[in-house]
Amino acid sequence: MQKTTIHDIARELNITFSTVARALRDHPAISEATKAAVREMAEKLNYRQNKLASSLRSGNTHIIGVIVPSLHVSFFSSVVHGIEKVMNENGYSILLYQSNELQQQEIRGIATFLQSRVDGIISSITLETEDYRHYEEIKKRNIPLIFFDRDVAALDTPSVTINDHEGGFIATEHLVQQGYRRIVHITATQALPIFQERLRGYKDALLRYGIPVREELILQGQFSLEFGKACIRQLRERGIPFDAVFALEDYTAMGAIQQLQADGIAVPQETGVIGFANESFGALVSPGLSTIDQQTVKMGEEAARLFLATVRDKQHKPRKVVLEPVLIARASTKKIIS
Amino acid sequence: MQKTTIHDIARELNITFSTVARALRDHPAISEATKAAVREMAEKLNYRQNKLASSLRSGNTHIIGVIVPSLHVSFFSSVVHGIEKVMNENGYSILLYQSNELQQQEIRGIATFLQSRVDGIISSITLETEDYRHYEEIKKRNIPLIFFDRDVAALDTPSVTINDHEGGFIATEHLVQQGYRRIVHITATQALPIFQERLRGYKDALLRYGIPVREELILQGQFSLEFGKACIRQLRERGIPFDAVFALEDYTAMGAIQQLQADGIAVPQETGVIGFANESFGALVSPGLSTIDQQTVKMGEEAARLFLATVRDKQHKPRKVVLEPVLIARASTKKIIS
Repeated sequence: MQKTTIHDIARELNITFSTVARALRDHPAISEATKAAVREMAEKLNYRQNKLASSLRSGNTHIIGVIVPSLHVSFFSSVVHGIEKVMNENGYSILLYQSNELQQQEIRGIATFLQSRVDGIISSITLETEDYRHYEEIKKRNIPLIFFDRDVAALDTPSVTINDHEGGFIATEHLVQQGYRRIVHITATQALPIFQERLRGYKDALLRYGIPVREELILQGQFSLEFGKACIRQLRERGIPFDAVFALEDYTAMGAIQQLQADGIAVPQETGVIGFANESFGALVSPGLSTIDQQTVKMGEEAARLFLATVRDKQHKPRKVVLEPVLIARASTKKIIS
Repeated sequence: MQKTTIHDIARELNITFSTVARALRDHPAISEATKAAVREMAEKLNYRQNKLASSLRSGNTHIIGVIVPSLHVSFFSSVVHGIEKVMNENGYSILLYQSNELQQQEIRGIATFLQSRVDGIISSITLETEDYRHYEEIKKRNIPLIFFDRDVAALDTPSVTINDHEGGFIATEHLVQQGYRRIVHITATQALPIFQERLRGYKDALLRYGIPVREELILQGQFSLEFGKACIRQLRERGIPFDAVFALEDYTAMGAIQQLQADGIAVPQETGVIGFANESFGALVSPGLSTIDQQTVKMGEEAARLFLATVRDKQHKPRKVVLEPVLIARASTKKIIS
C-alpha cells in the first residue's frame, strides 16, 4: 500500500495541498473548521506527518544549504550524496548552490541561502576566495557552518577534510615502490592549503626514499586536461628526463597520459602516471588511472554529522575531522610486471 | 540565538513594527530622527534587511529552483550550467535539488522550493514519477514551471527537449552507414517517452535502410554500466549474432564495450558501439565512445529563456522548444578504415 500523503488528504477534502500543509502546522490563516476536518481526515487515512512539516512549527525550516565549487567533477557530487544520505534520514532537505569557483558567486549563494532561511550551511570554498566576510556573517547569525575538503583555518569552524599530506605522500611512495625514480609533480598556482599539502607529501616521500627533490620536476599551473598535456610537452621540449607523473588531480593526470601516448611513450611501462580524487572516469579509461581516493561519501556523511552535533549542542567545540586517503592502484602505474 | 527581526528593533525603541518597516524603506511619513534611530538600532542588533522581506513587496525573490534527477551524470550538470548562465545574467540565483530519480524526493524538493518562495521551478521528472499532483500545485500557485529533457505532456507546460526520435534515428543510421547490419538496441524498462522515442528512431532507421527489425536484438533493463555488460553476455550465451550496439545512454554503452573487450571481441572492427548523451568520459576512453550530443548547455539556456518569457507575459502560451541532436562519431564505430 502507498503511504498517505498530503495530496490524498487534499483530494478527499477537495482543498489544495498547501491548505492541508498549513492546516497541519496550525497556520493562523486557516479556519478552525478546516483544521479540524484536515486532522480528522489525516487520522482516518492514517497519515503520518513528516518531520519537515512538523518542524515548521518549531521555527526551523529543516533545509540545509550546500555550496559546491563545481558539479562537473564527480568528487563534489559524491560528497553531496553522503551529505544527503545522513541529512535525509534526519528529516532535512538539501539545497545546492554552485559557486563555479568564483568568490562573487559564492557570496551570492550564501545570500540566497540566508534569504531562504536555511538551518545551516555546508561549504567548500572556491579556489579564489580570500575574503571571508560572507562566512563571518553566517557565524554572526548563529547559523551552523561546516566546511568540507577546503577549510578556512582562520574561521574556527567544524570541518571534514582529508589528510592531503598523507595523500601526496602515498601517491609518491607508490610510484617509488613501483620502481619509478624521476617523478614529476604537477601542482596548482593557487595557494590553497590542500594543494600545498599534497606537494609537501610528495617532497617528504622523496626524502624518505633518498631521492633528491628537483625543482625542475615541479610544475605549476591552472589544472586541467589541457594543462596536463602542456606539462608533458614542456618537459620534453626542455629535454628534462622523467619516468613518472603525480598530478594534483585526475583530469590533469589524464591529459599527461594522452600526451605521452600521442608521443609514443608507453604508459605505464616507460612512464607511470597517478592522479588524485578518484574521478569516476578513471576506472573506464585504458590504462586504468591510478589515483588517491578521498572517501568522498564518508566526507559528506561526516560533514552532515558535524552539522547535527552542532545543532544538538550549540556550545559544541568546533571539531576538525580528518579522513585518511586511500591509494587506488590501477594499470597506469604498473611498471613492475607482477 | 534567534535572528534579529523588525520586531526586535521595534521592541527596543518602543515603536510599532510598521514604523520600523517604513523607516527602513525610507518612507516619507517617518521623521528623519526616527529613521536615524531605527538605522542605529538595526546596526547595533546586527539586523540584515532580508531580501525576502523587501522582495515580498515586489513579490519576487529572484531565486529559481531547479530539480535534477541526478548530478552523477554530466548531462544534468551541463544543462544546469546553461540555466545558470542565462539566469545569472538576468539577476536570478539558482538553487538545485537532486531527486535521485525518486518521486518521493521530487515531491519533497518541490515543497522545499515552495517554502523558499522561489520565483519559478525548472525540472526534469524522475524515471518513476507517475503522479503529477505536486506539479499541478506549482501551476495552481501561478509559479512558472518549465520542464527540460523529460517533459510531461499532460501538464501543458513550456518545455525544452531534444528530438529523441531523430537521435535514435541518426545513431542507428550512422551504424548502418559504417557497414554494421545486425544492430542491437538496449533500452529501458521505464516507459519514459524519451526512451520510447529513441527506440522508435532505431526501428525507423532500420526500415529506411531495408534492414529487418528483430525483436531478439532489442533488450530492456535498468540501464547502467553493469547492465551493458549483462546484455552482451546474454546475447552471446543465447548465440544471437550481432555486429553493433546502440545503447540508450553512454554508461550502458561503455559496459557493452568493456564486456566485448573482455571477451576478446575487437571494438570497432568486429562490433561497433554507440551511446547517447555525450557524457564527458566518452572522449577519454579508448576507443573513444561515439554518441549523440543533446546540446545540453543550449537546453539549459533555452529553459531559462522560456522561464523569462513566461515571467514577462503570464498569458504566454506554453511553448515547446525541441532541439536537434548531434552525432558525435568517435573511434568506437569506425568499422570502415578511412
